[in-house]
Amino acid sequence: MFEVKDDERLDDLERNNLKIIQNPSKFCFGIDAVLLSSYIKVKRGEKLCDLCCGNGIIPLLMSAKSEGEHFCGLEIQEECADLARRSVEGNNLQEKIDIVCGDIKNVTALFGAASFDVVSVNPPYMIGGHGLVNPADAKAIARHEVLCTLDDVVKAAAYLMPPGGRLYMVHRPFRLAEIFERLNAYKLEPKRMQLVYPFADKEPNMVLIEAVKGGKPRLTVEKPLVVYTEPGKYTTEVEDLYHF
Amino acid sequence: MFEVKDDERLDDLERNNLKIIQNPSKFCFGIDAVLLSSYIKVKRGEKLCDLCCGNGIIPLLMSAKSEGEHFCGLEIQEECADLARRSVEGNNLQEKIDIVCGDIKNVTALFGAASFDVVSVNPPYMIGGHGLVNPADAKAIARHEVLCTLDDVVKAAAYLMPPGGRLYMVHRPFRLAEIFERLNAYKLEPKRMQLVYPFADKEPNMVLIEAVKGGKPRLTVEKPLVVYTEPGKYTTEVEDLYHF
Repeated sequence: MFEVKDDERLDDLERNNLKIIQNPSKFCFGIDAVLLSSYIKVKRGEKLCDLCCGNGIIPLLMSAKSEGEHFCGLEIQEECADLARRSVEGNNLQEKIDIVCGDIKNVTALFGAASFDVVSVNPPYMIGGHGLVNPADAKAIARHEVLCTLDDVVKAAAYLMPPGGRLYMVHRPFRLAEIFERLNAYKLEPKRMQLVYPFADKEPNMVLIEAVKGGKPRLTVEKPLVVYTEPGKYTTEVEDLYHF
Repeated sequence: MFEVKDDERLDDLERNNLKIIQNPSKFCFGIDAVLLSSYIKVKRGEKLCDLCCGNGIIPLLMSAKSEGEHFCGLEIQEECADLARRSVEGNNLQEKIDIVCGDIKNVTALFGAASFDVVSVNPPYMIGGHGLVNPADAKAIARHEVLCTLDDVVKAAAYLMPPGGRLYMVHRPFRLAEIFERLNAYKLEPKRMQLVYPFADKEPNMVLIEAVKGGKPRLTVEKPLVVYTEPGKYTTEVEDLYHF
């Protein structure tokens, strides 16, 4: 049973009968979360920690898409964490998924060092919160670096994984240089990267990255991922990702 | 008049009647040089220094493609520098193009600081010279970091330009993380990047980068550049670049 509040809705994830509670006035997951969930590799028996988990879309999807042993979502906003927890309970996944409400900057107090094999994150993309009408707004917090920066995210990921641990991130290409620089600062070596182009002849608007803690330098830039053939019509590749 | 030696040939650049002397047993320019020459922006009155200039293809092409005031090519191999010089003389471009034979690691003795507006480089792509049968071979030196490393290249570029100076580089995507890290170390901010995909559904095999000395962080990743529609057949975009 799902506890769905008045301003919320219950969406079907079209996978293993999973459903997710969403609040359109706060934040609903987008294609970036779906593409990230297809990019993340969690092997049998591994433990995943998803930072900035929002309504829990990544832990929910990964519990169905992978053979991982356990999935944890860390979320700073109590309202979002509560909503994610109700989705976990409604799907009867309490034994597989934990939702923790806490601040990524306080991660050493929340989890032991190297306690996860894999970390994933769909962090706020935009730098700072300047010009925001309401920086305390849930959508603003999810999109802008109001409560956590790229450095906070990468630092936490490095702490949470042992050498060989894998970080998966979706971000905006305009911050790629900074992302690589921060990953390097925390000894997380970018090993795989895929640019997501809305159309085959347009600039990419997303980048997917896999980094390995203590990995040797050598990056594989993968074939382009093109989202649409025409406005509103997904390429077969993205159709497949949605239904995998 | 071109002084062409026995083992050399004289190729038509199909542009402004330019010709270039090449030695197939040493090194001939490839599509990477052509794409780089289209990526480089040299504005009216600006001075360009091309590092690792080989047979001088970039200074030659840029003298025709841009309104730059002066073009310099730095090459460590005396044989290559000599060949480049003979191409410059044959094309009567001695007043526009200088070919300097020297070591990039010795750049402070060769040129004054900040003496160029723009630096370009098509450096050796491969790390080290391990396993090479003959590391002194001209082709090996052009392809492998036998005589200069990525760090040498970026360090020299940073020295040669004032704040606001632009570096253009073509390289292999597998070294992208390291490239960004080195650029960052020398305060050369990546501002523009284009991945070159041999085919629309294959991994990219080249990357073009523009970095600005002291620039503000914000990278534009451009639309993909696809080279072939089918084996041996260029896309119209690349056809246009060849004939621009």
